[in-house]
Amino acid sequence: MATLLIEHASELVTMEGPARARVGKELAEPAIVEDGAVFVRDGLIEAVGTTADVAGLAEAGTVRIDASGLTVAPGFVDAHTHPVFAGWRAAEYELRVMGATYEEIAAAGGGIRNSVRRTRAASDAELAAVALHNASVFLAHGTTTIEAKSGYGLSVADELRLLGAIRRIATDTPLEVSPTLLGAHEVPDEYRDRPDAYVDLVVEEMIPRVAREGLAEGCDVFCESHVFSIEQSRRVLEAAKAYGLVPRFHADQLTRGGGAELAAEVGAASADHLEQLDDAGVDAIVRGGVTAVLLPGSVYHLGLSRYAPARKLIDAGAKVVLATDFNPGSSPVPSMQMVLSLACTQMRMRPCEAFAAATINAAYALGRGDRVGSIEKGKQADIVAFDAPDHRNVPYVFGVNHAVLVVKRGAIVADRRGPG
Amino acid sequence: MATLLIEHASELVTMEGPARARVGKELAEPAIVEDGAVFVRDGLIEAVGTTADVAGLAEAGTVRIDASGLTVAPGFVDAHTHPVFAGWRAAEYELRVMGATYEEIAAAGGGIRNSVRRTRAASDAELAAVALHNASVFLAHGTTTIEAKSGYGLSVADELRLLGAIRRIATDTPLEVSPTLLGAHEVPDEYRDRPDAYVDLVVEEMIPRVAREGLAEGCDVFCESHVFSIEQSRRVLEAAKAYGLVPRFHADQLTRGGGAELAAEVGAASADHLEQLDDAGVDAIVRGGVTAVLLPGSVYHLGLSRYAPARKLIDAGAKVVLATDFNPGSSPVPSMQMVLSLACTQMRMRPCEAFAAATINAAYALGRGDRVGSIEKGKQADIVAFDAPDHRNVPYVFGVNHAVLVVKRGAIVADRRGPG
Repeated sequence: MATLLIEHASELVTMEGPARARVGKELAEPAIVEDGAVFVRDGLIEAVGTTADVAGLAEAGTVRIDASGLTVAPGFVDAHTHPVFAGWRAAEYELRVMGATYEEIAAAGGGIRNSVRRTRAASDAELAAVALHNASVFLAHGTTTIEAKSGYGLSVADELRLLGAIRRIATDTPLEVSPTLLGAHEVPDEYRDRPDAYVDLVVEEMIPRVAREGLAEGCDVFCESHVFSIEQSRRVLEAAKAYGLVPRFHADQLTRGGGAELAAEVGAASADHLEQLDDAGVDAIVRGGVTAVLLPGSVYHLGLSRYAPARKLIDAGAKVVLATDFNPGSSPVPSMQMVLSLACTQMRMRPCEAFAAATINAAYALGRGDRVGSIEKGKQADIVAFDAPDHRNVPYVFGVNHAVLVVKRGAIVADRRGPG
Repeated sequence: MATLLIEHASELVTMEGPARARVGKELAEPAIVEDGAVFVRDGLIEAVGTTADVAGLAEAGTVRIDASGLTVAPGFVDAHTHPVFAGWRAAEYELRVMGATYEEIAAAGGGIRNSVRRTRAASDAELAAVALHNASVFLAHGTTTIEAKSGYGLSVADELRLLGAIRRIATDTPLEVSPTLLGAHEVPDEYRDRPDAYVDLVVEEMIPRVAREGLAEGCDVFCESHVFSIEQSRRVLEAAKAYGLVPRFHADQLTRGGGAELAAEVGAASADHLEQLDDAGVDAIVRGGVTAVLLPGSVYHLGLSRYAPARKLIDAGAKVVLATDFNPGSSPVPSMQMVLSLACTQMRMRPCEAFAAATINAAYALGRGDRVGSIEKGKQADIVAFDAPDHRNVPYVFGVNHAVLVVKRGAIVADRRGPG
């Protein structure tokens, strides 16, 4: 039996607490143990506490990790990513920097449709290579579970290819994956003049096929004025529910289009983005029990200034989650540490709140709160050690990778600890 | 004789050009060679061009680096850092996130004075350890030359100790250093009621002593409404000039106090920050021939929204430089790559302009333009390879460290290239 002891953590951020997402003041209760230790057996956490309490469990053969000077926390759960695409879009980035808007680039055939053309042209092997590379980057930055969306195929066959590449992450790497069908990410070129016919395809063919083959847990739609309307989005999400896929979707990002209310109406697991949310929208999210997945990376990267109203959502009692929105257009950031910096610095979340939103709350948003997202007895041993004396240092010293040790299901999957 | 060949670079960004800082449209002329190669002998660049042109120079014993798929560029020159201090200030960061302003924290005895108290209490060995650790972080992120300020001692003896720790970077690591005396960083506690007496100490004792002992190349002052006035700053900078120290200083950061005009008046090598610069200030900078060192990390980190007017400065013909302002209070970011992201995304600089500002222009700002800052025949071989197909990817994919190979004076000082 394989055992692992992590001991002498400067701070052990356990996120111990109620068996549900943290809301309100609970977000600021990270349950920190000083000089903390975790004992792991066969991939599961067997004991958590001070080093004095836990270290005695070590056996002959236990791998011992001295975490002196390090902050140890649950592995990040990134609840919104787009990790499979062919080619970066650096040229569009430069155009945006020079003044073009995201919508203008999309209208000119760039944006998501650009990635779709290139992704369709890529081989399965090329797509799998991208997926596996991005998985290694997530892991190296302390993310141990991701939600992963398709959405750059936009045909039945190509969306299935993308979900196949996402499945490769789960089978070929230690990164845990919750796959989501995002067939309704954009209207593909060949349906440009008949978007409702494309929605028919998603609803009548794509969703049933993906559900039947067990390729996704969730289903998403980009509900936005220049993409899919509220009515079209409702059709997609209702079809998803009918086929047992969890509805979660892009809502109220660039325009306030009523996404929050739709999320409450259809009982979505999450409404993601919400930058344009007003007070009525906050109400709808809270009353609907919808998880708010906030994605500050895209606001920063698009050079916009309006972030989602994190403080209002927290004060109103919403279940708040942070995620990267990793994608080649609006949010090319794979690091949850950078997202924590954005959340604290730009959205005024406290570091402890940001950690809760990025771990335990994200785990509940993906239906895994009973198993990951905190360092508690009986849970899966998904653990990160940061070269930081204090959890606050992770968002505070920004633009770098603080993660020096990453453990997934009890196995060390990244180790950059120095000789000292 | 040691020789090194870097070949097959996807893009070789040479920054070849006139023997002076780039201005106006020149900033957007990075002189890129596709399938590029550099041949290095004894720490100096002997040849630059396409792989077809250069690879033939390889000799028996030449170390060959295959840079396929990588972007190769001059090592970053970080023209504004505060790399020696005792202790982070994460608690103040959390207070700021919760609503306190930088000025309020300073007025309550936090901020720079907090670092000063802890730095004074630290041993020489502790300060040297911090300096050497931060040097390794700079190098790992592709920075091969830094300007380094004292400023957390605020007594003759303690400022000398800080400059001693900075000297250790130069003697004990490959990182090249231009040291700056920043005795006038803040008014220390013991001079709180008589700031002019502290300026006397800086002018009459600190500057002469530092100049006599050859401990610094430059001299800085924090010219700001709650710190040192224009008149006090003028005294410091004029004394610096009289003793042969290059004047460069913090100007027009939090309030528009006339720092730009003072910089022109005293012939400062650079005016740094300039977030509050108006059109008259831009004029003063350009007419005075003052280099504008822009520090977007502090704007981001303080949660402010007003960045320095980079586009106006470029359009007016100013010599623009980018730097981290690495320090434990307002800008805890050691990575120039993150600063490039901020410059492009928030200040609308093109990626090629940001690279020029962070390499060749910064080298001229530190009086090293004849020797570093570009990849040209005869120059020092300070070179970085980024895991990026295109120079634009460095600011575009943000929050990560793209640098996989760092070369200083022809020696490999960091190497994270994968097995592939």
